[in-house]
Amino acid sequence: MGDHLTTHDLLARVEELIGGELEQAERVFLSEVSSKHPYVHDVLQHITRFQGKRLRPILLLLSAAATGGIKDSHYVLASVVEMIHLATLVHDDVLDDALIRRHVATVNSRWNNETSVLVGDFLFTHAFHLSASLGDARACRLIGRATNLVCEGELAQIYERGNLNLSEDQYLQIINGKTAELCAISTELGALYAEADEQIVEALEDYGRALGVAFQITDDLLDLLGDEAQMGKSLGSDLQKEKLTLPLIRLLDQSSPEDQATIQEILSQPDQQTKSRLAQFIKNSDAIEYAANRARDFAKQARESLKFCPASPARQILEELTEFAIQRTI
Amino acid sequence: MGDHLTTHDLLARVEELIGGELEQAERVFLSEVSSKHPYVHDVLQHITRFQGKRLRPILLLLSAAATGGIKDSHYVLASVVEMIHLATLVHDDVLDDALIRRHVATVNSRWNNETSVLVGDFLFTHAFHLSASLGDARACRLIGRATNLVCEGELAQIYERGNLNLSEDQYLQIINGKTAELCAISTELGALYAEADEQIVEALEDYGRALGVAFQITDDLLDLLGDEAQMGKSLGSDLQKEKLTLPLIRLLDQSSPEDQATIQEILSQPDQQTKSRLAQFIKNSDAIEYAANRARDFAKQARESLKFCPASPARQILEELTEFAIQRTI
Repeated sequence: MGDHLTTHDLLARVEELIGGELEQAERVFLSEVSSKHPYVHDVLQHITRFQGKRLRPILLLLSAAATGGIKDSHYVLASVVEMIHLATLVHDDVLDDALIRRHVATVNSRWNNETSVLVGDFLFTHAFHLSASLGDARACRLIGRATNLVCEGELAQIYERGNLNLSEDQYLQIINGKTAELCAISTELGALYAEADEQIVEALEDYGRALGVAFQITDDLLDLLGDEAQMGKSLGSDLQKEKLTLPLIRLLDQSSPEDQATIQEILSQPDQQTKSRLAQFIKNSDAIEYAANRARDFAKQARESLKFCPASPARQILEELTEFAIQRTI
Repeated sequence: MGDHLTTHDLLARVEELIGGELEQAERVFLSEVSSKHPYVHDVLQHITRFQGKRLRPILLLLSAAATGGIKDSHYVLASVVEMIHLATLVHDDVLDDALIRRHVATVNSRWNNETSVLVGDFLFTHAFHLSASLGDARACRLIGRATNLVCEGELAQIYERGNLNLSEDQYLQIINGKTAELCAISTELGALYAEADEQIVEALEDYGRALGVAFQITDDLLDLLGDEAQMGKSLGSDLQKEKLTLPLIRLLDQSSPEDQATIQEILSQPDQQTKSRLAQFIKNSDAIEYAANRARDFAKQARESLKFCPASPARQILEELTEFAIQRTI
């Protein structure tokens, strides 16, 4: 595993190539996430601390750099996708009653649920206002549609919670909405506002979507596996919420009717023993390998979407991101 | 009071003038509030039952009719403002833990809070997508900005809850955001997309804003007064939430320091006796009259904004709506 690309290395390469542009996008973002009302301003300032690796702005700017070059509109759009991402995080924290996000108190725990719901709405609506500031309706339409699909995906996930017969197709549909859509819109907007040809714009959209799916399958695998040392000790949050993810879908699909019934019973009563009770079934199956391979398939599909793009340092990093998306499971 | 316009009469006049157009807007609305996912579709269908008098679509279409005529884009925009209104209602019900809205179970009580938060987000984002379908960024920019101000107003209200020194200015700022903004955007968009002159568009925006403020002051008065027969029995929801409204701001402002202290103490411990304990103070003051007069001022201001509009049946109804907004307090 030593010759794998580390997150640190990859981010250093990103920084080297588009560090200045990311900083510029961040300046736009910070100047927009503000309010003349001191209370609202405080909450917004707090929320900026939830920012992570800024994956979506990075995808948007790399996509622009790979297809025609980064323009002023890209800084605005990078802020928009980051703002929407933060809005979904703030609302997720309400849904999950979460106390901590990235080592910082969530809005619902530091203030209250009302503030969380409204500040999430504030971020959504501000993102739309900001995207409209570009003066053409393309970005508004794409962003409106994508965020709408994100909400639909999350609603579908809530509905399917506890459904122990979820199919792989249904699973892929859900993660396509809740995760991949916002990655797809980031890379699509990057290329679209770089004035790339239609074929290239579509290719970059496909790239973002496949990358997002690879990321989410990997996240779900990590949620199930957790830290190996902790195996059997901490219950993955998906298990707790009775969210069926790809390895478990595969496990059930490949099990005998008797084992299926036993596994479904274990899953339907999540407790501290769930993981250890599942461990033997998982070990005797190809569930983990299968899910890891599916993630790899999507990463490959993402890489292949880039073939229409001329070679460039930005395209190179986009390619490496597909490895980064899945190598955490290997 | 017998010669006052009744709600029923006014709505019959609206129906007569723009009934077909309202129906057309409703058809657009119903075809948009849908989802290919059966669960999401069910929840959306349920939410359409929260619709009331459709004040915002009525304002938008009347404003169009009064300034240049109703066009196809107005049906879309009328659906957009209704959708945003419903989104704020669904999120308000989460904030208030409400069980019933318009004799129908709220989304949070029939389903759960997660679904309420996400379906509100779904409606917001769908409204943006729909407004972008008009193909120009004007509607997107205005709607993005207005909804953002609505959220800011609601956040400010949460922050000021329990602040017994709220000034009239602060109060007006809050209701300007949380209520008047969506009325203002409705009448502004009506005129803008009727291709009216800039001066007329601004006048209609002013009309909607002043009308919205008059409506909200009146609502707040009704919340305090409640049904006279119930006086002292049911606690207004504003009192319960320690939301200071205009009559109480006036009462405190005009009271002696001793009375002020007593009233603030009563307000800071809301219970079933609060109303009866306040009754004598209110009766000995001009609080009710003052607030009713302020509502009347804003209604008059709204009417005066219409002076740039040529006389028409639609303008006539817009004028009468300003009476309707305040007469409930008389």
